Formats: sequence, structure tokens, C-alpha cells
Amino acid sequence: MTNCYKYRSHCPINQTVELLGDNWSMLIIRDMLFFSKTSYGEFFESSEGISTNILATRLKQLEANGIIEKYIDKKDRKKSIYLLTEKGLGLAPLLAEMLLWGYEHGDKPEEFSSVAKKLKTDREAVLSSVLEKYRKQRLSIV
Amino acid sequence: MTNCYKYRSHCPINQTVELLGDNWSMLIIRDMLFFSKTSYGEFFESSEGISTNILATRLKQLEANGIIEKYIDKKDRKKSIYLLTEKGLGLAPLLAEMLLWGYEHGDKPEEFSSVAKKLKTDREAVLSSVLEKYRKQRLSIV
Repeated sequence: MTNCYKYRSHCPINQTVELLGDNWSMLIIRDMLFFSKTSYGEFFESSEGISTNILATRLKQLEANGIIEKYIDKKDRKKSIYLLTEKGLGLAPLLAEMLLWGYEHGDKPEEFSSVAKKLKTDREAVLSSVLEKYRKQRLSIV
Repeated sequence: MTNCYKYRSHCPINQTVELLGDNWSMLIIRDMLFFSKTSYGEFFESSEGISTNILATRLKQLEANGIIEKYIDKKDRKKSIYLLTEKGLGLAPLLAEMLLWGYEHGDKPEEFSSVAKKLKTDREAVLSSVLEKYRKQRLSIV
């Protein structure tokens, strides 16, 4: 993001909205942070059924806004790998709140009850552990 | 939201995304919670320039999903008033995280430095006070 970029308003909540683009971005970031996904193919396989053009556009936008970085896969140099930057990892608390609210008001699936409970009772510890795990994964890849 | 509603996936983060609709919804909820706005005209005036059709659609969706409620204005019975429900107020921590991240990575406007600092150092107190103020406002209207 260059300094000449003009946001629609000075409100930081709006600036978050603009930097993220739309809610598909949050699902891509969720896939990276919580499910250790790194490739276009892996993001595409997620059960929400993101379309190829939306996925490609969001990855470009997230990269342009410094939230993710694109690398060449060392094991297969024809493949790209996407990793969250520290700025992107800063969205972890936002994802945590989305998970908690969605669990409370959505269909409360059994497989998420444990993480929702842990997040509610010990938010900071859960977030620290998720971030530490991600940074280790990133170090092993880059 | 009826029980037969099918989300695209069981992930609570995705369910939050689906219940909110898109990021314009977060700006409407911000206007209600932080700026005490209650009417279509007030939401429309916000500096991000939401279009009339997006605003109307989002209000309907937020109402259908139990996040806001529509009332008749007691002072002018031709006017509608929109208020956040308790479910909608549950989004306050998510808005707080959006504000903090946007302040950190956006253009850091001076007028938001005080609220960002307070939220960072005493998140729970700020949120409690915002919610208490909103509930009082709601009681005085309904």
C-alpha cells in the first residue's frame, strides 16, 4: 500500500474492509492460518466453493496489500506458495472473533465446540499457540 | 434464521461471513454502534458512499438474520428506525478488532488514535461502556 492510496474514509474499520477486499479474503486467510494451506489448489478445494476468478483476484489483492506473500515452491519450482506476512497474522484476533460469533449464532457444529470453548476461556493462549505454529511452518518453507 | 437454512460449510468463520453478507454490513453496524445512527438517511450519509440499493439490501438481510430490528419511529410514524439486537451487539468485539487492525495498517488518522489506544490497553472496559451506552439509547427509543 503506497502513501498516495486514498481510502473511501479515514475510519480504520472501513480501511480494514478496503484492505481485505471482501469476505472471501477472510476464508483464504482462515485456510492459511488454521488449516496450514499454502497453494491455489488447496484454497480452491475448501468446502465453501470459491470460484477460480474470485480466488485469483483475492490472492492478488491480498499480496498487493501486504497481507500475504507469494513464493516459489522449493520442491516444485513451477508451483507458487502463499504465506501470511506479519501484517496478515495480525488478523488472527479478528478471525477468532468471527469464529466465536459464528459458533454462537450459526449451526454450532460439534467439531468446532472444543476450539470455540478454548477461545472463549483462554483467547490469548490459543492465539499465541496458533501464531507460533504458523511462524514455525513459514520458517520451514521459506 | 430457520433451522433448515444450509450454510456453504460448517465452519463458524464462514457462517459469520454468510450471516453478515458482505463488508458493507460491518459499516452499517459500525454506524449504529459507534455513531448512534438509526435511520436509512443517516446510514446513507456515511462518508464511504454506500449506494441506495446495497444499503436497502443489507438492511433487509441484517434484519432477516436477526442482527438488527426495524421499528416505527414514535416521533414520525412514517419513518423507520433500525436498532441492533443482542445478537448484533455480539459483533462489537469483531468491530473492535477491525478498528485496531485498520488503525495499525491504514493511514493512522489522528482522530482515531485515542480510541485505538484505549481499545489496545483496556479492550473489555471500552466494549462494556459502548454496549451499555447502546442499550440505554435503545431503551429510550423502543
